[in-house]
Amino acid sequence: MTDTRKTANTMWGGRFAAGPDAIMEAINASIGFDKRLYAQDIRGSRAHAAMLAAQDIISSSDAEAIGEGLLTVLSEIEAGEFAFSTALEDIHMNVEARLKEIIGEPAGRLHTARSRNDQVATDFKLWVRDQIDAAIAGIEALQRAFLTQAEAGADWVMPGFTHLQTAQPVTWGHHMMAYVEMLGRDASRFRDARARMNECPLGAAALAGTSFPIDRHMTAEELGFDRPAANSLDAVADRDFALEFLSAASICAMHLSRFAEELVIWSSAQFRFVRLSDGFSTGSSIMPQKRNPDAAELLRAKVGRILGASFALFTVMKGLPLAYSKDMQEDKEQVFDAADNLMLSLAAMEGMVRDMSANREALAAAAGAGFSTATDLADWLVRALGLPFRDAHHVTGSLVALAEENGCDLPDLTLEQMQQVHSGITAQVFDVLGVDNSVASRTSYGGTAPAQVRAQIARWNEVLG
Amino acid sequence: MTDTRKTANTMWGGRFAAGPDAIMEAINASIGFDKRLYAQDIRGSRAHAAMLAAQDIISSSDAEAIGEGLLTVLSEIEAGEFAFSTALEDIHMNVEARLKEIIGEPAGRLHTARSRNDQVATDFKLWVRDQIDAAIAGIEALQRAFLTQAEAGADWVMPGFTHLQTAQPVTWGHHMMAYVEMLGRDASRFRDARARMNECPLGAAALAGTSFPIDRHMTAEELGFDRPAANSLDAVADRDFALEFLSAASICAMHLSRFAEELVIWSSAQFRFVRLSDGFSTGSSIMPQKRNPDAAELLRAKVGRILGASFALFTVMKGLPLAYSKDMQEDKEQVFDAADNLMLSLAAMEGMVRDMSANREALAAAAGAGFSTATDLADWLVRALGLPFRDAHHVTGSLVALAEENGCDLPDLTLEQMQQVHSGITAQVFDVLGVDNSVASRTSYGGTAPAQVRAQIARWNEVLG
Amino acid sequence: MTDTRKTANTMWGGRFAAGPDAIMEAINASIGFDKRLYAQDIRGSRAHAAMLAAQDIISSSDAEAIGEGLLTVLSEIEAGEFAFSTALEDIHMNVEARLKEIIGEPAGRLHTARSRNDQVATDFKLWVRDQIDAAIAGIEALQRAFLTQAEAGADWVMPGFTHLQTAQPVTWGHHMMAYVEMLGRDASRFRDARARMNECPLGAAALAGTSFPIDRHMTAEELGFDRPAANSLDAVADRDFALEFLSAASICAMHLSRFAEELVIWSSAQFRFVRLSDGFSTGSSIMPQKRNPDAAELLRAKVGRILGASFALFTVMKGLPLAYSKDMQEDKEQVFDAADNLMLSLAAMEGMVRDMSANREALAAAAGAGFSTATDLADWLVRALGLPFRDAHHVTGSLVALAEENGCDLPDLTLEQMQQVHSGITAQVFDVLGVDNSVASRTSYGGTAPAQVRAQIARWNEVLG
Amino acid sequence: MTDTRKTANTMWGGRFAAGPDAIMEAINASIGFDKRLYAQDIRGSRAHAAMLAAQDIISSSDAEAIGEGLLTVLSEIEAGEFAFSTALEDIHMNVEARLKEIIGEPAGRLHTARSRNDQVATDFKLWVRDQIDAAIAGIEALQRAFLTQAEAGADWVMPGFTHLQTAQPVTWGHHMMAYVEMLGRDASRFRDARARMNECPLGAAALAGTSFPIDRHMTAEELGFDRPAANSLDAVADRDFALEFLSAASICAMHLSRFAEELVIWSSAQFRFVRLSDGFSTGSSIMPQKRNPDAAELLRAKVGRILGASFALFTVMKGLPLAYSKDMQEDKEQVFDAADNLMLSLAAMEGMVRDMSANREALAAAAGAGFSTATDLADWLVRALGLPFRDAHHVTGSLVALAEENGCDLPDLTLEQMQQVHSGITAQVFDVLGVDNSVASRTSYGGTAPAQVRAQIARWNEVLG
Repeated sequence: MTDTRKTANTMWGGRFAAGPDAIMEAINASIGFDKRLYAQDIRGSRAHAAMLAAQDIISSSDAEAIGEGLLTVLSEIEAGEFAFSTALEDIHMNVEARLKEIIGEPAGRLHTARSRNDQVATDFKLWVRDQIDAAIAGIEALQRAFLTQAEAGADWVMPGFTHLQTAQPVTWGHHMMAYVEMLGRDASRFRDARARMNECPLGAAALAGTSFPIDRHMTAEELGFDRPAANSLDAVADRDFALEFLSAASICAMHLSRFAEELVIWSSAQFRFVRLSDGFSTGSSIMPQKRNPDAAELLRAKVGRILGASFALFTVMKGLPLAYSKDMQEDKEQVFDAADNLMLSLAAMEGMVRDMSANREALAAAAGAGFSTATDLADWLVRALGLPFRDAHHVTGSLVALAEENGCDLPDLTLEQMQQVHSGITAQVFDVLGVDNSVASRTSYGGTAPAQVRAQIARWNEVLG
Repeated sequence: MTDTRKTANTMWGGRFAAGPDAIMEAINASIGFDKRLYAQDIRGSRAHAAMLAAQDIISSSDAEAIGEGLLTVLSEIEAGEFAFSTALEDIHMNVEARLKEIIGEPAGRLHTARSRNDQVATDFKLWVRDQIDAAIAGIEALQRAFLTQAEAGADWVMPGFTHLQTAQPVTWGHHMMAYVEMLGRDASRFRDARARMNECPLGAAALAGTSFPIDRHMTAEELGFDRPAANSLDAVADRDFALEFLSAASICAMHLSRFAEELVIWSSAQFRFVRLSDGFSTGSSIMPQKRNPDAAELLRAKVGRILGASFALFTVMKGLPLAYSKDMQEDKEQVFDAADNLMLSLAAMEGMVRDMSANREALAAAAGAGFSTATDLADWLVRALGLPFRDAHHVTGSLVALAEENGCDLPDLTLEQMQQVHSGITAQVFDVLGVDNSVASRTSYGGTAPAQVRAQIARWNEVLG
Repeated sequence: MTDTRKTANTMWGGRFAAGPDAIMEAINASIGFDKRLYAQDIRGSRAHAAMLAAQDIISSSDAEAIGEGLLTVLSEIEAGEFAFSTALEDIHMNVEARLKEIIGEPAGRLHTARSRNDQVATDFKLWVRDQIDAAIAGIEALQRAFLTQAEAGADWVMPGFTHLQTAQPVTWGHHMMAYVEMLGRDASRFRDARARMNECPLGAAALAGTSFPIDRHMTAEELGFDRPAANSLDAVADRDFALEFLSAASICAMHLSRFAEELVIWSSAQFRFVRLSDGFSTGSSIMPQKRNPDAAELLRAKVGRILGASFALFTVMKGLPLAYSKDMQEDKEQVFDAADNLMLSLAAMEGMVRDMSANREALAAAAGAGFSTATDLADWLVRALGLPFRDAHHVTGSLVALAEENGCDLPDLTLEQMQQVHSGITAQVFDVLGVDNSVASRTSYGGTAPAQVRAQIARWNEVLG
Repeated sequence: MTDTRKTANTMWGGRFAAGPDAIMEAINASIGFDKRLYAQDIRGSRAHAAMLAAQDIISSSDAEAIGEGLLTVLSEIEAGEFAFSTALEDIHMNVEARLKEIIGEPAGRLHTARSRNDQVATDFKLWVRDQIDAAIAGIEALQRAFLTQAEAGADWVMPGFTHLQTAQPVTWGHHMMAYVEMLGRDASRFRDARARMNECPLGAAALAGTSFPIDRHMTAEELGFDRPAANSLDAVADRDFALEFLSAASICAMHLSRFAEELVIWSSAQFRFVRLSDGFSTGSSIMPQKRNPDAAELLRAKVGRILGASFALFTVMKGLPLAYSKDMQEDKEQVFDAADNLMLSLAAMEGMVRDMSANREALAAAAGAGFSTATDLADWLVRALGLPFRDAHHVTGSLVALAEENGCDLPDLTLEQMQQVHSGITAQVFDVLGVDNSVASRTSYGGTAPAQVRAQIARWNEVLG
């Protein structure tokens, strides 16, 4: 133990041997992650400089020099030629310091009438807004993949499960379309979040606004915002947009985890409902039939990570007094990681859905097992014979028991056998037995009947354009 | 130890001594909590029965008997005369069983063309929708309380903090209005959630729809939904509406926790920025000046509880295959608890905000301390003398140091002293020094100048009607 | 919309119509839930009074009156005859007020040298400690149920899964014993938590200790604590014991969720690995073979709730300055709910495990499918023929492909067929093919061989006594 | 909107333009993060090879070649000369492939009798165990920093707060020692976690154990484990050790967040209780007195991140069937990030505590304000005059009111004034008034009296050695 502990001490000490400065730099500097905001930072600064010139706060020539210089910085970063410095702490100072090297004195006028507080809020909002757009695009691509599956199998029968027990037959298309609905809500949620966040913090300055005669509507418009944020304290203290993005991402990732679970179960040797493509499964060098649904399992897991990010940021924001506190610097890594994993998950799920093959025979066989049309029979007794619901259930139970005794399924009973249980039963009963009859009959709006499923497919094809 | 463990064994065993049946009933029955859905359950059943009659699926007389009978059940429950039975498991069976006692056989026809799966989804959605309306009402009431404070102190100066350090003076009204903005986003978030969830699950039946010729648009309209849900599998498997409610509630509770933290700090003997009313603080029998901000502390804590409910339900929903699984029964208690605590928190915060008194003198004294107008001076040097931003900062630093040496504040320096630091300084500089000048000058849109604050107050008064 | 909103306003307003007092009482009073601490509160007060007398701080006759009076209160509460008062806020004041009614003036001396801060910490610790004991008892009962299953099927073969794909055959006993190990860690975790928390806060008073000559070791011992807590500020500010209980409960509940998931999958018509008893499943009135694993699904969900409680309390405790803050009142409901659900989950799982029947034939059939002994073959090639691991895999792949071509399993190939793939193969290869041979051969420590499984069963039977 | 969406589509599409292969590699490969396990992986492989030779499963010369070759790989990695390959997926395959390049054919024998499942579990456990040791070392270093502060100010008075309101005077040393206690529990929690996890998974192979005559006790001992894990299924499916590490880290981080909050509040201009060193605060170029407690704020936030990681992994593990599922690959990044942030937080807090200066005068002034010794007076009335507790409170309240009227503090009242309120009061009362008297009198075990504080300091100095 002593040895290990000595090692531990050294390791721990060693890691921070350089003393307080190194520790403070390690905990304080954000350039390691916020450099991802370079494009947004430069875009925001260019808009700010143009506005300062338009308002005669700086000269047009200074603004031009700044604008050009920033484009140079942008191209250096994108070419991988930019040397990020931890001593300069964050992306804002890195960009500004390099700008000064390039254009000299006018660089010092860029920061007029703004502060890092409104600058970082603006940069981060722009970044999150881009991610929202990317998420919506990814969701719609995934919806199209589900739609393609639904179109192919609008009338393929499969078991509809409750409690993972066969309840009633449904169609493959209907099941696929359930995810199109969920994803539709996801996209709608992201759109609402986008509209709500689309107010520009730039010009809030440190927290109180500024005495320079700036035009916040101009910068807001230039950056694609609907309007400037209406309270400068709130503008720099607000991270709702990040939390709402994470909440929407969490719900979306939860939806993906549900289908991922289905894929894992459906890929088992016991179910064999689907076959994932080689591209999205891994094999075994010695067991050729083994096809591990690795990607599906990882997608099932990703909701944990995204939720974790959401919880982390909520906890950070809890109880923070206004306006800006350094705690809020913890916002970016959580959102970056969640966004990266959401986009990757959407892309992977789209690929899996597009490539997977339903095993139509296995689905059909499972759909018919277990007296899955008993409900249809009971409904027929109500509808055709006028039995009260609860009586119909009683008669159905007896007929199922009779079939079970005879080792057959419901449609295999003869009319005579049925009439012994209830004399009113007629030959028309056979029209509702059998899984194809069953699904065809469920024509209520949103039901599993192929006609209903195709109507929903048509609607969504129109929505998605 | 042995003794304790024996006790533990007995306790543990004792609790479930009644054997498997008691355990299963304890874990399975939901009537203990879902009885809160009684009004929604009855409303949904009445709409369903009326539709069944309109579609000739049941007779008009049966429908009438059902409708009347359900009103009787409703009045029994509201009068506290209803005997809930755990053996009947849930609110749906409790209501239906009692209905049968009252009206007899027609009660058996009510459950035609529906199942408990679509029934509970409908009930719960109706309940959550009511809570959303209540949350919006509570939020708007709280906004009005903040507006009243803002109107009273639109030009009272106080310190604007970053890192809990005085940064620049702001106005009390401006600070209050920051919360009006946050709450405005909260209300908007709840409104979006309401619109998105407002699709009716009724008629999805167990999961596949039904073969009865039901009219889902009719029940949807009767229950105030915008349309029926478009996929019956999704309709019974979806709990997005609960998750989105919890997410919106979490963000709102986070906002409350921020003001609660400010109230706790501001109530300390060291700050004395506000005095909470007797009604919302507790005292000490022997220390009369002690005024514990208990309610503020509890509000600071509530975000934990609401967040916990949110994460609990996310975890439950993770990886659930379609359509209904019993796991989903865990949804209600989380939402009930979160909703109760959110409504209580909004009411308590409204009361506290309405009743609290700002200590205008303490705010003003703190606002002026610590050279809080140094930024104003620097901005003046840029604006009036054309100094680059970074040079202006250097000059300001020297002036602050000079004031510190002389043990005075910036406005107390003489013009001569100032000119020794930078010869270009003129007497006009005194117009921007002093906290009142400072806040008055920050007239950028959304800034802290009283005129800006009043404009925002006017806008919000209009919005809230 | 207007109508609904009016309703919402009324509802919201109505709920708190009684004004600030009602709101403050609703948010502030804890008696609604902390009455569950009555036994601990009375036990703690009796110990305190006895100590005060032993130290001559109060008279023996007062102490006796207090002790007797408290027993009266206890019996009133247990008989359901106690009228809890919300105006008296919490369990401590409720008990003390009733004590005063019963014994008069000496009741006023009980609160000497303590405060509500150390009192509630003590009560709550005693309660959590009892729950830890109950959890350990529940865990051990569940371990015994798994042991019984393991003993019955120590050599029954079943598929060992990775990625829910058959990987290698294992034994039923081995699988059951995996849970015995997990639960063993759970019990150990609770024991460690118990030992760590077992320091008595009583005597910390409000936060600073007291000037009365109390004997904290005496009360600590009387209440079964190992020692008094060593820092009075920490003693009243600490809720680690609650967080550690919740963390241990969360891990335990996660274990239960894993077996619950297995039960749900294993109960499906496609797997049919187990049959849950009637007591722990629910049926369908018309589909007799349907056996919904409701209890398993609920257990799968419970981890969400317990985890949610854990995160709720963590969030509450985040950033609280010392010593006591009212935020901490939010601790109890979370722990109560988590403890109740953990105990119920353990009992339900014990019942399910005890009652379930493994379908030995289905397990065996699945174990042999899919060339599940390919690894055994590869290992034999390494062991018997000295092939390097990677070459052995290549040969095995060819043999599996050959079997697949012939539509047979590995043991059905003839020696000649095998030798065409690799000439060194001898008849001894058949000793490792076949699932029974496979599992029998895995005799490494902790492996799936029945002998190894039985050794572990024996070890655990001894541990559990 | 169209434009943005097109951009989004391109961005989203572009990111994964390389098609399914690129997506699958992005989601599936772990080498990007699990390369941090290289040292543990090589250590484990060396132990495994040595055991294989000792058991005559491979030859001594092969084992030697493997052992030497692995050291070469290790030195290549540590020298930064190793080319990690994503195509080789993970650290295990990267190391083994390079080993093969270096030593040729014998490399193929290393993987005998193990699989990636037990290999990664072993590597990760070794890594977590190292982090536990580092955490304990970091905690102890921080305890020493608090002890140093406590020693310096064992008798400095400061306000003891409840609800951030002054309740009673305490000593600086006492407050510092509260954190020593909390951290002591943290270290103890990590030690328990270490002992519980210290069972070696190596030899569990894929999940079933192996038929090779391996000696798991030998590898366990070589790797510093207490014993081999007793169930091979559990050994590869278990991530309790990661969850327990995260839980312990969360509690520790919560403790740090509490002191961080105190530092933020204490550093405010209104409190001025402490001055953080330049190294751990950031300033303003123009406001020299501004000293932003950035590091404290970041430490306050870190608990969110660590909790988020914990929640993420819990969610991942929820409901996973045995044994290994790919979901579990999500374990490492969460633990890596949490461990890095915990170690950094401990180091930063140690630095801050070591460097901070208490403002003894400000503490003392605040300690005496607000009639903070009213409790002492009440206790004296009980102790010296025999008044019942509640009567003593009444008298004290009157005396405080009298002092307030006279605009003085309690010790400034004359004996006569006091006797007008209660005639029994004697001059001895002045011995308990005044903050120094107050703290000196609280001599109960663990109380705030300097003598008690010094006794605890001495105990802890001994414990920490």
